[in-house]
Amino acid sequence: MDLSVDIGGTKTLVAAFDEDSLVPREVLQFPTEPHRGFEDFLRRLTETGKKLLSGEQLRIWAISTAGAVDDDGNVLWSPNLGWKNLALKQAFSRFFGDKGFVENDCNAAAYAEAWVRGSKNLAYVTVSTGIGMGLVLEGKVYRGSHYAAGEIGHTIVEEEGPVCSCGRKGCLQAISSGRGLENLIQSLTGERLRCEDIFEKAKMRFEPYFQVVSHGAKVLARFLTNIVDTLDIEVLVLGGGLTKSEFYRNMLVEHVQRNYYMTPGKKISVELSQVQPNPGTVGVLLLSRQRFGGIV
Amino acid sequence: MDLSVDIGGTKTLVAAFDEDSLVPREVLQFPTEPHRGFEDFLRRLTETGKKLLSGEQLRIWAISTAGAVDDDGNVLWSPNLGWKNLALKQAFSRFFGDKGFVENDCNAAAYAEAWVRGSKNLAYVTVSTGIGMGLVLEGKVYRGSHYAAGEIGHTIVEEEGPVCSCGRKGCLQAISSGRGLENLIQSLTGERLRCEDIFEKAKMRFEPYFQVVSHGAKVLARFLTNIVDTLDIEVLVLGGGLTKSEFYRNMLVEHVQRNYYMTPGKKISVELSQVQPNPGTVGVLLLSRQRFGGIV
Repeated sequence: MDLSVDIGGTKTLVAAFDEDSLVPREVLQFPTEPHRGFEDFLRRLTETGKKLLSGEQLRIWAISTAGAVDDDGNVLWSPNLGWKNLALKQAFSRFFGDKGFVENDCNAAAYAEAWVRGSKNLAYVTVSTGIGMGLVLEGKVYRGSHYAAGEIGHTIVEEEGPVCSCGRKGCLQAISSGRGLENLIQSLTGERLRCEDIFEKAKMRFEPYFQVVSHGAKVLARFLTNIVDTLDIEVLVLGGGLTKSEFYRNMLVEHVQRNYYMTPGKKISVELSQVQPNPGTVGVLLLSRQRFGGIV
Repeated sequence: MDLSVDIGGTKTLVAAFDEDSLVPREVLQFPTEPHRGFEDFLRRLTETGKKLLSGEQLRIWAISTAGAVDDDGNVLWSPNLGWKNLALKQAFSRFFGDKGFVENDCNAAAYAEAWVRGSKNLAYVTVSTGIGMGLVLEGKVYRGSHYAAGEIGHTIVEEEGPVCSCGRKGCLQAISSGRGLENLIQSLTGERLRCEDIFEKAKMRFEPYFQVVSHGAKVLARFLTNIVDTLDIEVLVLGGGLTKSEFYRNMLVEHVQRNYYMTPGKKISVELSQVQPNPGTVGVLLLSRQRFGGIV
């Protein structure tokens, strides 16, 4: 049996796969609660893993996690988890052996989406509480010089934009993410609405909801179009909670399709994430199987 | 002897190198005049090449050219040259043999700049009449899915920006390139000034020159910062005529250094192009020597 884990800021998902399958046989999840510390988290994670194995032999394991992950499976930093310089691969190996691979969740998701499509160059963007990106270039996960490739949430897109959680102004996720939209509406109306409710009001063209949401979509779409043009990728995959809203998603897709720079032969496809249950889990399992000779 | 050629919209440069050297022994140049047709150009190019060889044996040749170049050395399209679907490698091979390599000029320049620095991930931007980019990622030239990677001149950065030569509004080069700045000043003042003169006036804070130039620099710098953050490159190299202006260049460098997203361990260096006589010529010669086993 193979195990694949996705560690998110809120919940951790553990999936068991038959050795020739990319469809999980069983999935368990538990709250990550990173504030309880890494040792406590590791105990809960290994317990969940053992429960899924229920005595069967583990072949290969894989972990996709929020944060920057180096080539040795260390989590260098992770704003969502609050962890730093954590030897995640080493720690998990103590319980489950060393046939395991750790990857950043957006990178792993991009890899899964590229793999199912047979794409060589693909960007995966997740639009949720925050915004992140994973890149597959020339068929491989692209990590960057400091394992920070795809860290697009805090790149500045508007000089005099709204203040971000990081203290700077005009970061992409202060304008276009779920948290960003919620904060903007609160600052304008005093209401603390969930993103779903903001979308509902925006869809009916109520102001300031429509203006805030359509501006957020436009800013994100322009940024994504710039990336599509610079990298000449063939597929842009949209993932994360906000892209489940047809209203928000359609604005993104239409803007990118209308605005990217058409050169002879160039064609960009903008698609919804299609890997289940979670592209990160499947992507990192593929990477781990490739490394350790399993069936992919 | 090795020959390396750089085909630009205005002039073509042909450089002869001793087989163990990256410093040209002799350089000739002639006006490209692409409107005279490719056969005419090819005749002038081979004549210049033969003159440089002056009877010596040619070992390896290399061509860096404006436009999109595929893996077989065909120029797919080139707005600067007006050529399309041109079998450049094949044509040049008829005269000089098949030990030759053709690459897009920005890609070749990026490769040269990465090679001299030992950089793994680097972006080279040229800011001149237009704006272009070359990328070296994981030590290799990154070409994209349709050989259009780095085509940043016509990506849209301002929704209601000035009209561009391509007919769209708000393209990066309509705001931040030499031609863009000249057009903007002409539309505001009626004067047709060269970029050097616009910079001179802007430096003395004369309006509207200062506003137009500083806005152009800011828009380009923000775009470059977004790319630096997304790709987590280690070096951004500035090339092209406009970056020879200390005034314009300093605005770019300062903005990028102040605004990129600092993650633990991340450090970006913004540097001037340093490969002489021309990074394209040297970069494509390196690529050709690597392919055909010469000394690099």
